[in-house]
Formats: sequence, structure tokens, C-alpha cells
Amino acid sequence: MLDYIRDGQAIYDRSFAIIRSEADLKGIPADLEKLAVRVAHACGMVDVIQDLAFSENAAAAGRNALLRGAPILCDARMVAEGVTRSRLPAGNKVICTLGDPSVAKLALDMGNTRSAAALELWRPNLAGAVVAFGNAPTALFRLLEMIDEGSAKPALILGFPVGFVGAMESKAALAEDSRGIPYVVVHGRRGGSAMAAAAINALASEKE
Amino acid sequence: MLDYIRDGQAIYDRSFAIIRSEADLKGIPADLEKLAVRVAHACGMVDVIQDLAFSENAAAAGRNALLRGAPILCDARMVAEGVTRSRLPAGNKVICTLGDPSVAKLALDMGNTRSAAALELWRPNLAGAVVAFGNAPTALFRLLEMIDEGSAKPALILGFPVGFVGAMESKAALAEDSRGIPYVVVHGRRGGSAMAAAAINALASEKE
Repeated sequence: MLDYIRDGQAIYDRSFAIIRSEADLKGIPADLEKLAVRVAHACGMVDVIQDLAFSENAAAAGRNALLRGAPILCDARMVAEGVTRSRLPAGNKVICTLGDPSVAKLALDMGNTRSAAALELWRPNLAGAVVAFGNAPTALFRLLEMIDEGSAKPALILGFPVGFVGAMESKAALAEDSRGIPYVVVHGRRGGSAMAAAAINALASEKE
Repeated sequence: MLDYIRDGQAIYDRSFAIIRSEADLKGIPADLEKLAVRVAHACGMVDVIQDLAFSENAAAAGRNALLRGAPILCDARMVAEGVTRSRLPAGNKVICTLGDPSVAKLALDMGNTRSAAALELWRPNLAGAVVAFGNAPTALFRLLEMIDEGSAKPALILGFPVGFVGAMESKAALAEDSRGIPYVVVHGRRGGSAMAAAAINALASEKE
């Protein structure tokens, strides 16, 4: 037998203790502290906390939306898979429309990516939703456009697109003018579905 | 309309060009170059390439296994979701056993995590499989134990557990003695389901 910790809760506890011992959590509001720690946990990097930006009301807006049963709209199935259903306070629906058969044609018609086109199918659920981007910059850009065009507004935008083209820019656009919508982003190229799901999981329950 | 690139293939092309212009790819064998680039793409960090370690035969072993129809065994559903089915060369099965109803009791009986216990259900598919760890150090440790106990051997181990407790150690244990099995790991705390899926997607098809 190899020598390693086999107790899941002990692994969580020790992980979060290591993060808190190493991380610079100054500048993180008390009600976002667990979100920041969980995002660091998801990627194995405590310095990602320095790249977080947020509106002051983000944690309360997200928590309250989930408590009143808001759906969670995800740009990628990996984000949806990362949401721990047992943490959700109101059996909230977790929705990813990217796999809908209509999306490929929608994307062609719109001249945009499938990730962006999939947001057309969010419209019936968008008002008051918790929206999580863990993959596609084009999807986050498209949401901002939809809101500028007059769509319903979500309760919270979690902006964690990742990568080298558009990710940094889409998150900067959101943070610069969130259209009055509470938000959390990680600036820069880093991001991803694990961080986005971690942010949702942190808002869904206080449990660590 | 906001100003951003809306063409998916153009985004990929530009992303990979940026990575190749910034990354230090010395030390990466030619047949692992696309895997290294795709792993960097998945996390938004070119320097992760410096933390890759691998056996010399890893790319050929993984590619050949996939061509002959090997199943892909994943420690987490997020990894399974990240595998692009249309890239797979032989309609390969993508298997994650973590959600099986028997796993919770198995974990209790074994005194290990559910992620580790789920590997008991891999046994019928383990011989010659491509195995991908994108989450749980305990699962990678457990695979090494199973092999030491005489289980069938996979064709390739992709070791990308992430986090603060056991991740670094599990990947070091694999790289130090892979039991003769070809492998790729990213050393350190970094890793995750997106990198693991990216590694599979790179081996599955040459297309970028």
C-alpha cells in the first residue's frame, strides 16, 4: 500500500488550510472569502486570488438568487458537470444549451461561435439567473451584447473564460462595465470550467 | 456590437500561434508537441509546458491504443465531458464510473475516497486502456496500487490531478516508477480536467 491520505474530508480540510496559510486574502470581502479559496483549490494556484475582481454585492446577489431557486446557466458542459448538485439550496436547475441540435445552425446564421449562439436558448431563463462562463470568451461577449440589446438581466455573472484570444478582453469588458449586474471575474488568461464551477459551489453552500 | 473574433477556427488558430510563439518547446518530443500546446491552451498558461514529464513512448502508445479502439477511462465526469467525441478515431468508449451507485459503499468498505473506489469498476476495461486523471490524486495512487497488486495494465496514463494535498505526490510517484506503463504528467499542484481532456483530444486527432 502506498502512503497517502484516503479520507476525502481530511483532504478538503488540509487543502483549504494550506490555501489560507499561503494566500493573500486582503482585499477579498468576507462574503467572498470562501469563493476565493475554492477557486484557488480548483486550479492548484493560490496566486489566482490576486486576479479576482468583483462588484461589492456579488456574493449576496448570487447567494440570494440561488436561495430563491434561480437557474444556473453554463457556457460549457464541463461547468455544468462541476456543479455539486447536493450543495444547491433549492434544487436549482443547471442548464447548458451548447449541445442543443439547433445551435450549429444558429451559429452559422449569426456568424458567431456555437458557444455564443447557444445563449439564444438562455433567454427564457435569463432573468435573475446565475450565469457562469468557464470556457468561451465569445459567449461572455455575446451576453454583454444581448443585454445591450435589451435582454433580461441575470442576477450574477461569473466570468472565468480561459485562453489566449478574447478571454482577458471579455473579462475586462465585463469588469469595466457590468451593465449594473453583479459579477466576479478572474482577470487575465487563466480561468476555466473548474474555477467557474468552484465559484458556483462556493455560493451554493457554506460547507467546506 | 462589441469588437471580438467570432470565428471558432480563427480563434483556435490564433491561440495556438500565440502559444507556439511564447512557449519553450525545447525538450518536448515532436510527437508530443501538439499535446503540450493543447494542454497550455486548456489552462491559459504556456509555462505549464515546463512542468510536463513523460516517457519517451507516450504519444505513440496513446495514439496506437486509441486507433485500435481502446476505451478512455476518466476519474471525473468533467474529464469525460471534455473529450471531443468527433476527434476519437475508433468511436472509443469514454468511461467514468464515479457516478455508479455502488461506489459510495465500495469507498466505505475500502477506506478510501469515492474517486479511488470507482477504479474497482475499471477492471473489465483496464487492459490496454487510455487512463486520464484530471482531478483526484487518490485515484492515481490507487491505480498504482492496483497494478502493484497484479491488475491489468493500461496502455497510457495521463496524470493531471490538481490541488494541494497529494496531487504533486501522486504525479511524482507515477513519474518515478510508472510500472513500465507509458505516461504523461504535469508536475506540481497544477492540473485539472481541462488539461487531461486536452491531452486526450491531442492524441485522438492531429487536427488543431
